[in-house]
Amino acid sequence: MADKAKKSHVELIPHFKTHQSATVGEWFREKGVKAITVTSVKMAEYFAGYGWNDITIAFPTNILEIEKINKLAERIDLKIFVNSEETAVLLKTELNTSVKFYIEVDVGDGRSGINAENSSAISKILEVTRGSNLLFLGFYTHAGHTYNASSPQEVVKIAEKVNEKLRSLKRHFRKEFPHLKIGLGDTPSCSIHEDFEGIDSIHPGNFVYYDIVQHRIGASAIDEIAICLAVPVVAVHPERNEVVVHSGWVHQGKDSLIDSEGKAFYGLIVHLTENNWSAPIPGAQVSKISQEHGVFNLPGDVMNDIKVGDVLGILPVHACATAVMMGEIYTLEGERLTMMPR
Amino acid sequence: MADKAKKSHVELIPHFKTHQSATVGEWFREKGVKAITVTSVKMAEYFAGYGWNDITIAFPTNILEIEKINKLAERIDLKIFVNSEETAVLLKTELNTSVKFYIEVDVGDGRSGINAENSSAISKILEVTRGSNLLFLGFYTHAGHTYNASSPQEVVKIAEKVNEKLRSLKRHFRKEFPHLKIGLGDTPSCSIHEDFEGIDSIHPGNFVYYDIVQHRIGASAIDEIAICLAVPVVAVHPERNEVVVHSGWVHQGKDSLIDSEGKAFYGLIVHLTENNWSAPIPGAQVSKISQEHGVFNLPGDVMNDIKVGDVLGILPVHACATAVMMGEIYTLEGERLTMMPR
Repeated sequence: MADKAKKSHVELIPHFKTHQSATVGEWFREKGVKAITVTSVKMAEYFAGYGWNDITIAFPTNILEIEKINKLAERIDLKIFVNSEETAVLLKTELNTSVKFYIEVDVGDGRSGINAENSSAISKILEVTRGSNLLFLGFYTHAGHTYNASSPQEVVKIAEKVNEKLRSLKRHFRKEFPHLKIGLGDTPSCSIHEDFEGIDSIHPGNFVYYDIVQHRIGASAIDEIAICLAVPVVAVHPERNEVVVHSGWVHQGKDSLIDSEGKAFYGLIVHLTENNWSAPIPGAQVSKISQEHGVFNLPGDVMNDIKVGDVLGILPVHACATAVMMGEIYTLEGERLTMMPR
Repeated sequence: MADKAKKSHVELIPHFKTHQSATVGEWFREKGVKAITVTSVKMAEYFAGYGWNDITIAFPTNILEIEKINKLAERIDLKIFVNSEETAVLLKTELNTSVKFYIEVDVGDGRSGINAENSSAISKILEVTRGSNLLFLGFYTHAGHTYNASSPQEVVKIAEKVNEKLRSLKRHFRKEFPHLKIGLGDTPSCSIHEDFEGIDSIHPGNFVYYDIVQHRIGASAIDEIAICLAVPVVAVHPERNEVVVHSGWVHQGKDSLIDSEGKAFYGLIVHLTENNWSAPIPGAQVSKISQEHGVFNLPGDVMNDIKVGDVLGILPVHACATAVMMGEIYTLEGERLTMMPR
């Protein structure tokens, strides 16, 4: 991703919400990354404590956290979101120091941000903040609707529309703000799309691990998935081709996908090898989970070799969820990653 | 639940996985509860540290945790599950001291335990453990399939079948084990069913808080739900009748239900009052969640009164998930509950 950003002349400002790890952060630093994206004030505080000085909190600013925001803004080059006139008015009064901000725009995902075509709402924010302690940086978006795509072609189609919307915003507002920047960054488009014309920065997060969702969309190969949950077998049920493992939603999250037969599954299953893991076992999947229980559906020939006390691996449907839920990750060399405490 | 158990002459051995709180544990003690159920060795260790001496780990024993199990068995009256001959053989060798065990039976849920009708598999475990350090207590079941019921009548129907299966097991094995006990305990049947004939103990967990799932099944009234997530409004979108709140799956879990129009929702919405909360706002629900974002769908008249910085409440779809994810709960009087660290 760092190479791609360099080649495309965009800045990689990776989202750290997926790994939430100071150790993984250092790997990014080695690749030349200087600025990062997080999803909460708490996460910004954590990474500020590990020497990150340029942090964007990619979440609509919660005015109730103003004290913490003021403290952070004194320590680091903090960038926040101002998504409404209302929030702008409150922040102008409550901020103790100048703070840079992005306006988050909604380009079709429908989660948060101002509709990218609603330039009058955008102008109102710019009017309220003009000459104040709130310094306008540009526009930021998360095109989360690429997650609904079922092919790389579809991702490209969505990404092209998104980029055109962002470029059009830039054309409109650059007269008044010639240095305004445009940032985007869902993992599917950052992985698949090659055209970043007019874009200044990208901030994907999930790509650090990838997962089955990304693999399905076409954003990653199966052997690019870099996270695997090791789980102990606690019961073997040959009569129903199932084993019970200690891995419930408290360990892996509750994200599911639908298989080709219309059944929900919660991960693919791999064998752990001395220093790695195998390709997914064909015909095997996590078929049920509850709080602490996981149930694997396994083909008969694999069943025969499994016994109580064995450890198998799960490639997660959603890496962000598994990383956050476990809160404890080791590299294949056995190094424990330092992670943000819950 | 304590009163119902007393009246029905069954022992209440509540499951503590829902609340995971030493403080809530004390409330149970005040109701005369002496023995508890947990779902992991870690949770047993936590509650043993708060003076609980009779703890059942209601999970197929993970032989890889034998060291911790041995340590616990020296401190408290530990009860574990032996669900296979294989596990029995391993435990016989590895246990340092006598430990009581239940055989978990599957009465239709299909998650874990030996099929309740498979008396030959049960007999094999009893044969392996005869005269050993593994002391047979009886049968335990979690009839999780009551969660698929759509009415209290359906729960009763399932519960009657389950209880008959358990009584039949008792008749079969009591010749050899005259003191064997039978335990059951999903919250729907413990809440709705009135007939515990032949049952010795019940171990429901979720009823301590209840939630929208239980309310839908008919296990609880809406005003019996005793858990509410307070969430700040960070953006207001009158043009789409939605507000964005800081409440994603990291705060509330990812459990959903389907509304009458076929749409998924992740909780109902209430107003917080000085010392309580209101009934759910009609027509309002949590319509989307991602890692940190929640989106509420609100009727127009409610929208008009909501502004950035307001705090609303969510009645969770699944109380266990919300309690575990937040890890921090306060009573309405402002007392912070002591909870198990993640």
